[in-house]
Amino acid sequence: MFELLKTDPRSKARLGRFTTPHGIIETPVFMPVGTQGSVKALDPRELLEMGTQIILGNTYHLSIRPGLDIIQAGGGLHQFIHWPHPILTDSGGFQVFSLAKIRKILAHGVEFRSHVDGSLLSLGPKETMAIQRALGSDIAMTFDECPPHNCSPWEARAAVERTIRWAQECREQPRASGQQVFGIVQGGSNPALREECAKAIVALGFDGYAIGGVSVGEPEPEMFAAVEMTEPFLPADRPRYAMGLGTPAQMVELVARGVDMFDCVLPTRVARNGTAFTTKGTISIKAGYNKADWRPIEEGCVCYACRNFSRAYLRHLLNVREILGLRMLSVHNSHMYLQLMSDIRAHLTAGTFSEFRERFVAGYVPSQKVLSARLLSRTAEEER
Amino acid sequence: MFELLKTDPRSKARLGRFTTPHGIIETPVFMPVGTQGSVKALDPRELLEMGTQIILGNTYHLSIRPGLDIIQAGGGLHQFIHWPHPILTDSGGFQVFSLAKIRKILAHGVEFRSHVDGSLLSLGPKETMAIQRALGSDIAMTFDECPPHNCSPWEARAAVERTIRWAQECREQPRASGQQVFGIVQGGSNPALREECAKAIVALGFDGYAIGGVSVGEPEPEMFAAVEMTEPFLPADRPRYAMGLGTPAQMVELVARGVDMFDCVLPTRVARNGTAFTTKGTISIKAGYNKADWRPIEEGCVCYACRNFSRAYLRHLLNVREILGLRMLSVHNSHMYLQLMSDIRAHLTAGTFSEFRERFVAGYVPSQKVLSARLLSRTAEEER
Repeated sequence: MFELLKTDPRSKARLGRFTTPHGIIETPVFMPVGTQGSVKALDPRELLEMGTQIILGNTYHLSIRPGLDIIQAGGGLHQFIHWPHPILTDSGGFQVFSLAKIRKILAHGVEFRSHVDGSLLSLGPKETMAIQRALGSDIAMTFDECPPHNCSPWEARAAVERTIRWAQECREQPRASGQQVFGIVQGGSNPALREECAKAIVALGFDGYAIGGVSVGEPEPEMFAAVEMTEPFLPADRPRYAMGLGTPAQMVELVARGVDMFDCVLPTRVARNGTAFTTKGTISIKAGYNKADWRPIEEGCVCYACRNFSRAYLRHLLNVREILGLRMLSVHNSHMYLQLMSDIRAHLTAGTFSEFRERFVAGYVPSQKVLSARLLSRTAEEER
Repeated sequence: MFELLKTDPRSKARLGRFTTPHGIIETPVFMPVGTQGSVKALDPRELLEMGTQIILGNTYHLSIRPGLDIIQAGGGLHQFIHWPHPILTDSGGFQVFSLAKIRKILAHGVEFRSHVDGSLLSLGPKETMAIQRALGSDIAMTFDECPPHNCSPWEARAAVERTIRWAQECREQPRASGQQVFGIVQGGSNPALREECAKAIVALGFDGYAIGGVSVGEPEPEMFAAVEMTEPFLPADRPRYAMGLGTPAQMVELVARGVDMFDCVLPTRVARNGTAFTTKGTISIKAGYNKADWRPIEEGCVCYACRNFSRAYLRHLLNVREILGLRMLSVHNSHMYLQLMSDIRAHLTAGTFSEFRERFVAGYVPSQKVLSARLLSRTAEEER
């Protein structure tokens, strides 16, 4: 299913190709997040125009609303949302532990109350695999426990043990035709736990491996370290997916550390707040200094927003709360993330990735506000 | 500028063609409303795909935000909003009288406080024509006074007198190159006042004539009567525009009464509330009965929403407050209005308008909820 086409000689960056029932994915790849069956503010045509290869859907959210019965009656998730291209579904584990009000952690899952109406639900390895099978996603994720960044060593170990046991149960469940299943490695910032978890998950044998428990409030160096201490234990012939990450510069750095797949709510979330991503960092389009700026968000960008609208007009739209404003920033930001991955693939092909990495990261000024928007996303989370 | 191509033998319906600096408009025409420089939730490409020929902009709103200086610096309204096709701007008279907090009605305009920040502003015939000239709209409207439906006879007469005097002042102002100016007829439900106002406005000589003071809270028969008592005094060789109207069936009836141009916020406003227009009436897409309805909003409709999405999916999007839901209903509803006008033009060309009118109006079930959404629009108004 996964073909490793090329490895960068000066880093761990990889160029790959990944075949799913609904199409081929060129890696490294960014996956826009369609939590509730829609990538926020965007339509399928816009997603395709900006080069989207695969989107995410969310087991927890979709099974609460509209409910699995509706999606099944509608012919599965692809048909229900009219996206005939690849879809990855997460297991719902993250949401159960972050969004829902947990009642009880049991051996084979979690009993919790819905964040929408308080109804009592339960989700575990069997349930999530049955749901993801019914959704018909191309890639299903195992049910894991993702503890908070500041948890105790005891909690971290318990979460790893449960994650491994649940991964095994997931592995044994039936799948949709052609559906691939990725295992998730937890272990926080503890090298021994990461190694133990990675080895156990890899021993179970999955179609790909995710690094979970990153983007949960830890400082950036710790996030990089968690990836670095996990990657060596992952097989080269399977794709690696860093869950919930990151900023553009972080993604470049993670590609250099051997990651192939990314998802992140940042591009659409900060768009709704008036923040645009560029290759140099972020811009607050609503700021007064844009009021008579007739340039596009980023010179040379070929997205629909940059081909048609000035910063001054977008600022006006955002200030008067016109939906077109947040739509166009969502278009631009998502395009920027996808274009970055396309540039990375081109540089890997041309053998110039390391020069690109150095130039890009040096030119990118990170914003504390944007970083905290991501952290926020893991607590009062609506999107993932 | 206006060419009357054909008149229906069995009604007053007219087929016409209207030339403006930014393009030719086939009439009867529906004009989507872009109050603040954006037709709510839609982008220019979507507008063109659904057959939009001309959009509205609003002098009052645009001169408050972003302000005339910004739009002028951006090269005028067409360039600022990136819409290279015809634009009609209203004069701001309606908003001054409905939205703003009026301080004083003076001989040559109105002193009022902005509804946004309370700042003291004034607008009159000279100011509105100067603003519309700077905006560079293809069609500018005269400054009128639109009194409420339930005003006293004395107020109605005073409004007509001011409207005529202000129209004359507007007539004398300089215009943008190629800009046409439409006069507005007021007079409420009083036949003598309507006649007097129409004759005086027509005597001044404008490029087109609008029937104002409709869609201000009056019952439908009174609205039709106001148009019927005005139309005979309007010259056949100029376009007629019924301001702020209406539902699909009302527009068909108004075409039959000799109206050529319409604008209305209903298609986009009710979309944001989950209501879809069809040729048979309206549907509340959020309603439970749509939860497993796999049909498009309207069978046979070729809009992007109907070609791609089921009612069940749109219901889900609206229920979980995904922006794509209100976007797609805005696409469908606006398309429905534009398609109706296109159908009317085809039937006028084919000589089958009266049969179409009869069939359409008989099949269209009006909704009280939708009618009151329009009335609401004239009081707590944000859009026009």
